[in-house]
Amino acid sequence: MSGPDYAAVLEEICAQVLAEPATGEVADYIPPLAQVDPDQFAMCVQTLDGERFMVGDVATRFSVQSVTKVFTAAMVLSHKDIMLWERVGVEPSGSPFNSLIQLELEQGIPRNPFINAGAIVVADALCGLYDDPKAAILEFVHELGADVSVDYDHEVAHAERDTGFTNLALANYLRAHGNLEHEVDRVLDVYFHQCSIAMDAKCLAGSFGFLANDGTLPIPNGRQILRPEQCRRLNALMLTCGFYDQAGEFAYQVGLPGKSGVGGGIAAVVPGELSLAVWSPRLNEHGNSARGVSALEKFVAMTGHSIF
Amino acid sequence: MSGPDYAAVLEEICAQVLAEPATGEVADYIPPLAQVDPDQFAMCVQTLDGERFMVGDVATRFSVQSVTKVFTAAMVLSHKDIMLWERVGVEPSGSPFNSLIQLELEQGIPRNPFINAGAIVVADALCGLYDDPKAAILEFVHELGADVSVDYDHEVAHAERDTGFTNLALANYLRAHGNLEHEVDRVLDVYFHQCSIAMDAKCLAGSFGFLANDGTLPIPNGRQILRPEQCRRLNALMLTCGFYDQAGEFAYQVGLPGKSGVGGGIAAVVPGELSLAVWSPRLNEHGNSARGVSALEKFVAMTGHSIF
Amino acid sequence: MSGPDYAAVLEEICAQVLAEPATGEVADYIPPLAQVDPDQFAMCVQTLDGERFMVGDVATRFSVQSVTKVFTAAMVLSHKDIMLWERVGVEPSGSPFNSLIQLELEQGIPRNPFINAGAIVVADALCGLYDDPKAAILEFVHELGADVSVDYDHEVAHAERDTGFTNLALANYLRAHGNLEHEVDRVLDVYFHQCSIAMDAKCLAGSFGFLANDGTLPIPNGRQILRPEQCRRLNALMLTCGFYDQAGEFAYQVGLPGKSGVGGGIAAVVPGELSLAVWSPRLNEHGNSARGVSALEKFVAMTGHSIF
Amino acid sequence: MSGPDYAAVLEEICAQVLAEPATGEVADYIPPLAQVDPDQFAMCVQTLDGERFMVGDVATRFSVQSVTKVFTAAMVLSHKDIMLWERVGVEPSGSPFNSLIQLELEQGIPRNPFINAGAIVVADALCGLYDDPKAAILEFVHELGADVSVDYDHEVAHAERDTGFTNLALANYLRAHGNLEHEVDRVLDVYFHQCSIAMDAKCLAGSFGFLANDGTLPIPNGRQILRPEQCRRLNALMLTCGFYDQAGEFAYQVGLPGKSGVGGGIAAVVPGELSLAVWSPRLNEHGNSARGVSALEKFVAMTGHSIF
Repeated sequence: MSGPDYAAVLEEICAQVLAEPATGEVADYIPPLAQVDPDQFAMCVQTLDGERFMVGDVATRFSVQSVTKVFTAAMVLSHKDIMLWERVGVEPSGSPFNSLIQLELEQGIPRNPFINAGAIVVADALCGLYDDPKAAILEFVHELGADVSVDYDHEVAHAERDTGFTNLALANYLRAHGNLEHEVDRVLDVYFHQCSIAMDAKCLAGSFGFLANDGTLPIPNGRQILRPEQCRRLNALMLTCGFYDQAGEFAYQVGLPGKSGVGGGIAAVVPGELSLAVWSPRLNEHGNSARGVSALEKFVAMTGHSIF
Repeated sequence: MSGPDYAAVLEEICAQVLAEPATGEVADYIPPLAQVDPDQFAMCVQTLDGERFMVGDVATRFSVQSVTKVFTAAMVLSHKDIMLWERVGVEPSGSPFNSLIQLELEQGIPRNPFINAGAIVVADALCGLYDDPKAAILEFVHELGADVSVDYDHEVAHAERDTGFTNLALANYLRAHGNLEHEVDRVLDVYFHQCSIAMDAKCLAGSFGFLANDGTLPIPNGRQILRPEQCRRLNALMLTCGFYDQAGEFAYQVGLPGKSGVGGGIAAVVPGELSLAVWSPRLNEHGNSARGVSALEKFVAMTGHSIF
Repeated sequence: MSGPDYAAVLEEICAQVLAEPATGEVADYIPPLAQVDPDQFAMCVQTLDGERFMVGDVATRFSVQSVTKVFTAAMVLSHKDIMLWERVGVEPSGSPFNSLIQLELEQGIPRNPFINAGAIVVADALCGLYDDPKAAILEFVHELGADVSVDYDHEVAHAERDTGFTNLALANYLRAHGNLEHEVDRVLDVYFHQCSIAMDAKCLAGSFGFLANDGTLPIPNGRQILRPEQCRRLNALMLTCGFYDQAGEFAYQVGLPGKSGVGGGIAAVVPGELSLAVWSPRLNEHGNSARGVSALEKFVAMTGHSIF
Repeated sequence: MSGPDYAAVLEEICAQVLAEPATGEVADYIPPLAQVDPDQFAMCVQTLDGERFMVGDVATRFSVQSVTKVFTAAMVLSHKDIMLWERVGVEPSGSPFNSLIQLELEQGIPRNPFINAGAIVVADALCGLYDDPKAAILEFVHELGADVSVDYDHEVAHAERDTGFTNLALANYLRAHGNLEHEVDRVLDVYFHQCSIAMDAKCLAGSFGFLANDGTLPIPNGRQILRPEQCRRLNALMLTCGFYDQAGEFAYQVGLPGKSGVGGGIAAVVPGELSLAVWSPRLNEHGNSARGVSALEKFVAMTGHSIF
């Protein structure tokens, strides 16, 4: 076989990463996240021809959090009549993920769909597209990940709602600028649930397959989710905006389109080749998984995969 | 031949672009730029196996301006002992190219080497590396572009100096924060000359060849300028930061690493395949060539080249 | 008589102001304010020895809005154990009255009690001091204005609540930063009602008497509300922060401590001499009554009253 | 005796201030300031009827620095044809004294004449009014302070020039925005010299007499420098903008118009009564004299002088 020996690569990465000192802390703004065992690690690679390679705690579910912003953005983009880009930009934010400053300076237009304000606008768009947007999101994720047992973690969703004052501030501010069409509480109910989706690394890797495959779910499914140019553009957005205020550094160090979440998960793609997921709960100072970023750097160095 | 018919593609792009209404104005902050015939257009593609395809005013020299920030960054990075990234960041700026705000908020560390402040720090580093940095830059560009007749346009350089109050402000502010080691006047003399380099589209396309070739000048030259991982990282930086505050949109619409200049030139790469340049002096509201951006969108759509 | 002939001064001001072209528009963010006859004008001066001079529509009640921020700040300051200044600053904001930017940059500490965020913190403090803060505010205003018929305008309060998304954003953001102790809805109910208080110019002028009298209600009442140094400091705050982002210009043009509201009312004091109120609904671009500011400039010029 | 016993008040303040622990450091950005004995203290009160009260090191000259911004603003305002307020605002800055951010956000119009950028515009205006602006400033200060021996400290002026990169940045940025009419070097030569003026506390107190006297030099001089309304407005500006980003707190704690400098001097006025100066080199975190602010608080508390 001519390509990299992914099984060996993953074993090696896992050994190296676990040998490094554990740094960073788990997200602690809500109890269900704070209680996660911080030293878990999982990594999964799924190639477009259907092979799967895994290492670590790949069957443990975790809160995928902001990674779901890619799913909801893709859902909205798959509806051809939605003018999402009139309501959300495509520029990196240069600021922490929940910044009100940029929202005020740019009069209620979030910089991109991967900061919280942008994802709230996306959730608002879903409220206009579906009678039951929470059911629709779950159905969509079931198909992407080929796992119908994926579900909301209602304890997480309720904890997010009870402490989500910054998101309430963002949503109300969007409403004040006319960039929220539905009731704040309804939109945030969708948003908080979306963030609470729990998946394991195996399923998460699979769910990004269509983004490595020009927008079409890899075989055996084969359904087209996005047109190729839409898929490429979503990948470009992930590269420039997928890692909060570390997006530039991630592009620089790793060079793959991806999206991280405060639950410690990261999903990424090598276009035309594979999708992958890594999970480890300790976060660096930018809110991205410390071991996850390290593992992806090693993966790129070992396999030579890079889009550049 | 299995690849795209670049000659036909370029003819078609040229025809389409010239048929579109001319929008935008040429840069007019200095007379030598203001006097350029606004409706010129040139495009050149150079593949890694040495083929060259051209259309339009490909032998007319123009001021490549900020495109040279890629050359000087590469020069500094090619010296392995230089700790450039302690003095300049790798994050998109989210602000216009000459913003003092970010420099103040981030205490004298420019966000990346492609905004003016960052390029001034790079010029300062060159002053430490070379006795005659202006001669060294020219020598480097001669090798990259395989054209020893490329030269500074002293009229442009002097006009930049006489009106460059914002750059004087930036350089002095960097000095105030201890991020400039040499005299402001000496560093800016290098910077203003660097911006004044005049090349034609043919030479500019060729000069980006090493960035499409993992850091090594394409045959027949074959010299390694950067290590592969350095090259990939410079490409990542171009993708996230190469188009002022339109970087996200360019990544989204075009999806190729590239760099633009206010002279109306844009150079870009398809890693592993080719480098290309396009030139047309009218600028859009972000300071990027209006027809240049349009031509690159068409090129990507017609050839399917994309890194995503 | 040694002092100015206030009756003549007010007549002259009224004549001059009404002869000037009407500029600006009434506040229209809620219907009850939008429907006010824009060309009304009233002015009332009340000296510390009990004389009262009036001109115009002095018996017409209007929504005093942000002027009430002075009343609630005085209420909180009159409780000696409250550490208000740990939660709210005393610096001018240099930004529009509802800015989220400064709140984010300064991590949830509003710059002063007269911007919306600061007044919401004050309302939160009142929720800790009183079982029924709305009744307490009304009782306090009744005593200050010597008019027990002053009441909330519930139509205005409800309209504020229904459209107050920016204030909801501010309150939630304060809560996110731990600078709101009570439920957002409870605090904003107090705040929206406070803004809705309707008074006439005569009563408003009287209600500022204690601020011209070193903190003690003028005879015949005579009760001490604030200690003299507290009163002086509240006056200093009004001078530096009482007019949104026009505070410096108002200090410069008028030179009296005062507070304005978007209902078109302004109350001010000449320490040791008198308090006064002016009302006219059309607002200038800073949200202050256009004719009100003009009338106060004339008053100062004609009487020589100035603190400087 | 009807007024306060100023001699006793000053003795008491001096005793109290010197008994307090010394906090803060002297300005150390240039050697001549860094070498000043940090524990010196002087205070001087001069009443409008010509009495003078002093305590401490009142005959020691110090660098009055930014206090001179009041002198140069008064000089420009005394020329009735100068439209200074089209080039400089009258609003508090809400930011440190040398902020480039506000200058960029407000496109080259400094917020007020007491921040560095504003004072540089004032110096530029003086370059248009006088052939030898440095001689003119000195002549003006000689008259205000009734002391023809006051002079520039050329060692300080040269040190300011050699390290004044932030001011060079500001001046170049003003030039870039068309808000500087003369050469940067010429304007900054005036500005750096103005900052270097050395006076003792006695002379400084006297030099603010006209600002306590409605714009006219107290007897025996009697010359009108500013019209009364101009004087009141300059006092209003000092109150709202005279203490960098501590202006609101100073207005709140002290309540007198005044201006501070990083040499540790503060001058202030009680309109209609007196002018005063205090000097002590240790600075608080806002760049204002720590003991100076404390002494002024005590002065106001002991004498009851306040404009509010």
